[in-house]
Amino acid sequence: MQKEQFAVIGMGRFGTSIAKKLHEAGQEVMGIDINADEVEDAELFITHGAVADTTEKATLKSIGISNFDCVIVAIGSNMQASILTVLLLNELGIKKIIAKALNELHGQVLEKVGADWIVYPDKDMGERVAHQLLSPNVLNFIELSNEYSIEEIKIPSSMGGKSLQDLSIRATYHLNVIAVMSHDEVTISPTPDHIMNDGDILIVIGKKSDLSAFSNIE
Amino acid sequence: MQKEQFAVIGMGRFGTSIAKKLHEAGQEVMGIDINADEVEDAELFITHGAVADTTEKATLKSIGISNFDCVIVAIGSNMQASILTVLLLNELGIKKIIAKALNELHGQVLEKVGADWIVYPDKDMGERVAHQLLSPNVLNFIELSNEYSIEEIKIPSSMGGKSLQDLSIRATYHLNVIAVMSHDEVTISPTPDHIMNDGDILIVIGKKSDLSAFSNIE
Amino acid sequence: MQKEQFAVIGMGRFGTSIAKKLHEAGQEVMGIDINADEVEDAELFITHGAVADTTEKATLKSIGISNFDCVIVAIGSNMQASILTVLLLNELGIKKIIAKALNELHGQVLEKVGADWIVYPDKDMGERVAHQLLSPNVLNFIELSNEYSIEEIKIPSSMGGKSLQDLSIRATYHLNVIAVMSHDEVTISPTPDHIMNDGDILIVIGKKSDLSAFSNIE
Amino acid sequence: MQKEQFAVIGMGRFGTSIAKKLHEAGQEVMGIDINADEVEDAELFITHGAVADTTEKATLKSIGISNFDCVIVAIGSNMQASILTVLLLNELGIKKIIAKALNELHGQVLEKVGADWIVYPDKDMGERVAHQLLSPNVLNFIELSNEYSIEEIKIPSSMGGKSLQDLSIRATYHLNVIAVMSHDEVTISPTPDHIMNDGDILIVIGKKSDLSAFSNIE
Amino acid sequence: MQKEQFAVIGMGRFGTSIAKKLHEAGQEVMGIDINADEVEDAELFITHGAVADTTEKATLKSIGISNFDCVIVAIGSNMQASILTVLLLNELGIKKIIAKALNELHGQVLEKVGADWIVYPDKDMGERVAHQLLSPNVLNFIELSNEYSIEEIKIPSSMGGKSLQDLSIRATYHLNVIAVMSHDEVTISPTPDHIMNDGDILIVIGKKSDLSAFSNIE
Amino acid sequence: MQKEQFAVIGMGRFGTSIAKKLHEAGQEVMGIDINADEVEDAELFITHGAVADTTEKATLKSIGISNFDCVIVAIGSNMQASILTVLLLNELGIKKIIAKALNELHGQVLEKVGADWIVYPDKDMGERVAHQLLSPNVLNFIELSNEYSIEEIKIPSSMGGKSLQDLSIRATYHLNVIAVMSHDEVTISPTPDHIMNDGDILIVIGKKSDLSAFSNIE
Amino acid sequence: MQKEQFAVIGMGRFGTSIAKKLHEAGQEVMGIDINADEVEDAELFITHGAVADTTEKATLKSIGISNFDCVIVAIGSNMQASILTVLLLNELGIKKIIAKALNELHGQVLEKVGADWIVYPDKDMGERVAHQLLSPNVLNFIELSNEYSIEEIKIPSSMGGKSLQDLSIRATYHLNVIAVMSHDEVTISPTPDHIMNDGDILIVIGKKSDLSAFSNIE
Amino acid sequence: MQKEQFAVIGMGRFGTSIAKKLHEAGQEVMGIDINADEVEDAELFITHGAVADTTEKATLKSIGISNFDCVIVAIGSNMQASILTVLLLNELGIKKIIAKALNELHGQVLEKVGADWIVYPDKDMGERVAHQLLSPNVLNFIELSNEYSIEEIKIPSSMGGKSLQDLSIRATYHLNVIAVMSHDEVTISPTPDHIMNDGDILIVIGKKSDLSAFSNIE
Repeated sequence: MQKEQFAVIGMGRFGTSIAKKLHEAGQEVMGIDINADEVEDAELFITHGAVADTTEKATLKSIGISNFDCVIVAIGSNMQASILTVLLLNELGIKKIIAKALNELHGQVLEKVGADWIVYPDKDMGERVAHQLLSPNVLNFIELSNEYSIEEIKIPSSMGGKSLQDLSIRATYHLNVIAVMSHDEVTISPTPDHIMNDGDILIVIGKKSDLSAFSNIE
Repeated sequence: MQKEQFAVIGMGRFGTSIAKKLHEAGQEVMGIDINADEVEDAELFITHGAVADTTEKATLKSIGISNFDCVIVAIGSNMQASILTVLLLNELGIKKIIAKALNELHGQVLEKVGADWIVYPDKDMGERVAHQLLSPNVLNFIELSNEYSIEEIKIPSSMGGKSLQDLSIRATYHLNVIAVMSHDEVTISPTPDHIMNDGDILIVIGKKSDLSAFSNIE
Repeated sequence: MQKEQFAVIGMGRFGTSIAKKLHEAGQEVMGIDINADEVEDAELFITHGAVADTTEKATLKSIGISNFDCVIVAIGSNMQASILTVLLLNELGIKKIIAKALNELHGQVLEKVGADWIVYPDKDMGERVAHQLLSPNVLNFIELSNEYSIEEIKIPSSMGGKSLQDLSIRATYHLNVIAVMSHDEVTISPTPDHIMNDGDILIVIGKKSDLSAFSNIE
Repeated sequence: MQKEQFAVIGMGRFGTSIAKKLHEAGQEVMGIDINADEVEDAELFITHGAVADTTEKATLKSIGISNFDCVIVAIGSNMQASILTVLLLNELGIKKIIAKALNELHGQVLEKVGADWIVYPDKDMGERVAHQLLSPNVLNFIELSNEYSIEEIKIPSSMGGKSLQDLSIRATYHLNVIAVMSHDEVTISPTPDHIMNDGDILIVIGKKSDLSAFSNIE
Repeated sequence: MQKEQFAVIGMGRFGTSIAKKLHEAGQEVMGIDINADEVEDAELFITHGAVADTTEKATLKSIGISNFDCVIVAIGSNMQASILTVLLLNELGIKKIIAKALNELHGQVLEKVGADWIVYPDKDMGERVAHQLLSPNVLNFIELSNEYSIEEIKIPSSMGGKSLQDLSIRATYHLNVIAVMSHDEVTISPTPDHIMNDGDILIVIGKKSDLSAFSNIE
Repeated sequence: MQKEQFAVIGMGRFGTSIAKKLHEAGQEVMGIDINADEVEDAELFITHGAVADTTEKATLKSIGISNFDCVIVAIGSNMQASILTVLLLNELGIKKIIAKALNELHGQVLEKVGADWIVYPDKDMGERVAHQLLSPNVLNFIELSNEYSIEEIKIPSSMGGKSLQDLSIRATYHLNVIAVMSHDEVTISPTPDHIMNDGDILIVIGKKSDLSAFSNIE
Repeated sequence: MQKEQFAVIGMGRFGTSIAKKLHEAGQEVMGIDINADEVEDAELFITHGAVADTTEKATLKSIGISNFDCVIVAIGSNMQASILTVLLLNELGIKKIIAKALNELHGQVLEKVGADWIVYPDKDMGERVAHQLLSPNVLNFIELSNEYSIEEIKIPSSMGGKSLQDLSIRATYHLNVIAVMSHDEVTISPTPDHIMNDGDILIVIGKKSDLSAFSNIE
Repeated sequence: MQKEQFAVIGMGRFGTSIAKKLHEAGQEVMGIDINADEVEDAELFITHGAVADTTEKATLKSIGISNFDCVIVAIGSNMQASILTVLLLNELGIKKIIAKALNELHGQVLEKVGADWIVYPDKDMGERVAHQLLSPNVLNFIELSNEYSIEEIKIPSSMGGKSLQDLSIRATYHLNVIAVMSHDEVTISPTPDHIMNDGDILIVIGKKSDLSAFSNIE
């Protein structure tokens, strides 16, 4: 992937986390905040920084925002500033605008004034935590459709020492085993005689109801 | 999975999102906040609510917190309240304490006073957003180890109308295709002659570098 | 004109002035404010009042906003509240939404979230005051196009005692006299021998440049 | 009109709007505010600016206020400052003092301490908006007396394609047609056979009751 | 003197002091404050109390202010409230309005809106204290004109034991002795052989320069 | 009187009034305030100024307070600062300390920590105003004892044109006439045939009850 | 000791600690605070509580403060309230007034207005902590004079297993051993053949310099 | 004792008292506060000062905190800052961390994040004051165990002029006399014929109940 130009507006915890990750991936990232302290605290994670009030068109122009392919509006809690900033970015022709919303109403306004992708960090992370609490053995998952998921499931100790064949996961639970993780070693498409150890993790694909039944074995 | 007892302390956006998801899954959830308005606003998502200062032991006892298996401390920005609450929950013998941290230092303190699992919503969501921005074709992913991942990749339009065999994904990119998603239909372990349509999504497993090469084809 | 249903949100000076005028014209007007004091102070000018946070959909519904044909959003200085309110009114299907904007950016957002007519009281009144200061003899005016206006002009004392014929306004200034006002008496389409008195006011139509020349005679 | 000297005190939205309009008309305008930011933001609309507390006589003198023919006191919401400023301007012999009032009581005080003209932007704009809402076809108007007005009325679609003669406006509605506007073209004193198009606007003079009857034809 | 009706608006230290003194003299006094605590604290010094915002005409009427002959506006530091209150009292026809001013500008406005007598407590008391400091032997004084005063002067110890004749106050200092005070006993028009004791006080009348010379004898 | 050294702490309205009067009398006055603005505003009324926190001993020393004979503590509303300042001035050996008290309790503390003279501006001025309201003809007075006073009384119009003899003030009212003021002319010890004019003012001495009877003649 | 009556004013940490200790010793203690919450939080440690503003004489009387032998003024940080309270307690004839001071100036004022004993918790505890840091082996001490102290000293491990005779403390260090503490057992006036164990603590009396030499043996 | 390195964080009253005492004992003390004023005010009591936010690891390193043997965290009322500071000090390997706690919960957290010694100044001083109030004759004490104490007791006047033998303290009260203090003179291990004077102080050791009986003789 060739180098893109990213600008992150709002150097709070959310914005800084994005900037840092992009920067680590070797991208050029400009960090912008109305508060000089925030920009300074983030200086290790950004290519260059700017202190600016992004609700003023002239200011946005003066920091050269039009040169950026993608701008992330990560403004913390000032809903008005976030709305006006997205409106102006849109007017200035930014191709891709990602914006953080505090709640659904906010998200709707952001969409109307031109945001391409709305992110709800608190809501989304809350849902992930809840999912984890409901299925403690499921360490991670990708929801494929309303019916199917891939899940990363810690095996119950009762399965330790048995082969995949013994467990007959496909027959009993109608699930496909994609991989087995033992500590940090990954075995893709394991053979049926692969022996499971206590603490191993299975990557399985199947119907949600089947996955739920399997992951709740004690 | 049998019914557990959950209590969520702090009915902000993060706490409400957790409570709502747990409640939708049929769990009993108590919602607690120092502010009556917050509890009221969440009343549709919780089994019962309590207005309480959770930094006072007597108060925690009086709302029967000891009866809960799992308590989520989702206190917004008051670091002191979050620390004292976790300390007291630990003293009162709560088996599982999940706590939201504002930053790493905060997370370390929470661990020392007894939290079992520390969540950093802004940091984690920021990383997910950054990942998405870096690989726009990768819609979702599970990181298996430092080396391996499973990714949900939108195929480039150049691949539309070809079979998996044509694309020789395994030979060229050293990746295993686990499933194909066409609109909302999921085909698990597709056969080699499965024809891809423009807009289809592949679920593939393999080395990160191989995945990156594949997902950046234009 | 048959009775319509008006609701005014924001009972500050601007909103109260609208409500009062509509009420005097025999219309039914509901006055809404987040602050009970404001609603109470306006009680003589409204048919009924409601204390409500109009940024909450449930609240808007509970006060029956959907029954109104026309809603005026006269919220003072809280830009966020004004934007969210207009968004919700639009969602609830209000046919005609008038909204006060603090500045042009605000106006643009209001338009995008569904306002039909944007009013800028301070800007508009400022312009009227400036116009008056520039042409002190012009008491009022309607701008017809970039070229033509109708103006209400106080005659210079030098014209007192002369007839319209004597003044040859049409010949000299290329203006049509529509009416003459003497104290509170109005003479429409006055005859050429109509004698002007000191302090009389002419209603004339013509090109702006001609009007300006005429109104600046001393 | 020869160049006058204007000073505007209070560079909020109302004051800035006045200053801008005067400046566009080629007048010299000094903009004054107690807050340096406001003066700076208005710098394109004023000849020169001053940061000053206008409730201190020495300060008013030091910025040379006595040289101005006309001073507009557009102070936002600080009633005390507006009163003291007008008092001092009067003492310093300013010939023409225009002042914005927040409400009627305020207006009365301003008059007693020497203001020549009191403006109520919110009240006046509110009334204009209400008038428009009551008579949606009336786009603008000049009230000549309690009995007579001139109005700018959008014709109902039923009148499209007819001549003024056909409509017999004078006979039926007792109104005089002063001009017809078709898009941006103005026809003054149109002939009776002038054909109206859908969307045309009539400028008519007459009694208010007659105007109301005419403007409410559907 | 027959009973008058007094109302005091503003029950701070100044207003309370006035109310108390009037009340002790057997007058009926109503005490009014916007703050209920202040009215309550003064309840021993007033005939009846009222909690009211005196910048609202309706409120002033409802507490029956029109029945009072004399109203004292002793509002502490809120200049705006004091101005509006005086304006309204004047409008309501109060015969005698006394008002406390914070400074001269304030005093001028109060006069213009209808106050009959302006009091400057801090300025006046400051002047009295300064006078006392400048002439420590002068305990009290009445200034009759620019030239003449009456002063209450403590005699220097050097005069103890002498008669008025011995001191030849009239001959040497051109002053008339009106009275002599010995402890709490007053001798009016003392005879020339009246013997002065250490600590006695003379009441003398004369030119200021002569008084100054006499009062500075050591 | 020789030149003394005065320092005034607290350049509010009360302190400034004292400083101004002393300065006008040719005294050297240092003006001190914790706020630089206040000192600057008073610069015309003081010999030199100092910005200082007078609750710190080192600061008081550094501004050379020990050189002053007399210090006036005119601190506005900060009771704590006024108490600590007086304590320190006493410790530093200031001979004469005058202090303003907000109420009686404050006054008692000031006395205990070393103030020589306590002034209550609001209370004292309130009493003077009340006295004036009770006896509108009495323009000024000196209270000599519980029994006797000197008063400056405006004569009722019924007395105009009569001689002192005609009025028999001594016989009827038991009062001594000390002086008569006609406009700005003062006649000391007037003769019995002195004719009074309407508007003249008498300076009389006598018992309070007699004075009250005389001053209430209409 | 017979039962006394104690009142503690100010139920912060310091006041509550006093009240609790007195209450545990069986004394009657009234707890007073201006804030109802503080009184409620302390309800287990006091005989009865009162919510009162102790800077008002009437209030102090109404809660019966005159019945108390001893009042502790433990007001946290409001210096003014603490001073006025002590003044009033003194006026009301309280025999013993203990007051907490924030600093030395405050302490001096408290003494002048009648406090019998001034406590400086932060200063005193700071000194005790510093003493401990300087002599880590000295666990506690009583300073008898500038020269002599009693100290509680942890013996160095080198002394374990030796008798007092062996150590010849009196001969070498000129110190008298008063007691030996072994765990929680106390031996008063131990015999010379008493064997010390590692971890034992000696109570010794002597000159400070000798004590310092002994306690710093490693 | 050799020179150690002390750092005190938080230069309030408590921290300053510690720093001052250590400094007087000839130790090197660094004083640190987030507020420059506090550091400046303490400059006479510290070897060097630093203005720093101690909740940031980089800042702590930059002021060289790792060089110190012992750090005292005397942060006033900001519980969060005190917790984070102790956590970081522990991470940086400080050998001895003393921290002030506001209450017991706070103390527990401090312990968990690595404080070696927790001090509760308000609680401890409160207890000492209470002890003194309960036994007014006991001037000081060391509690040796639950059973034994050493106390410094002022003798009742009835014992003046008697010898220790006469008083038979050991026989009657089962107490050992360790020393007698007469004014500032200390007699260690006094002989039985030592005569007591009124005002003398005994240092005695014994059971608490016996001490209590003896110290309450009147």
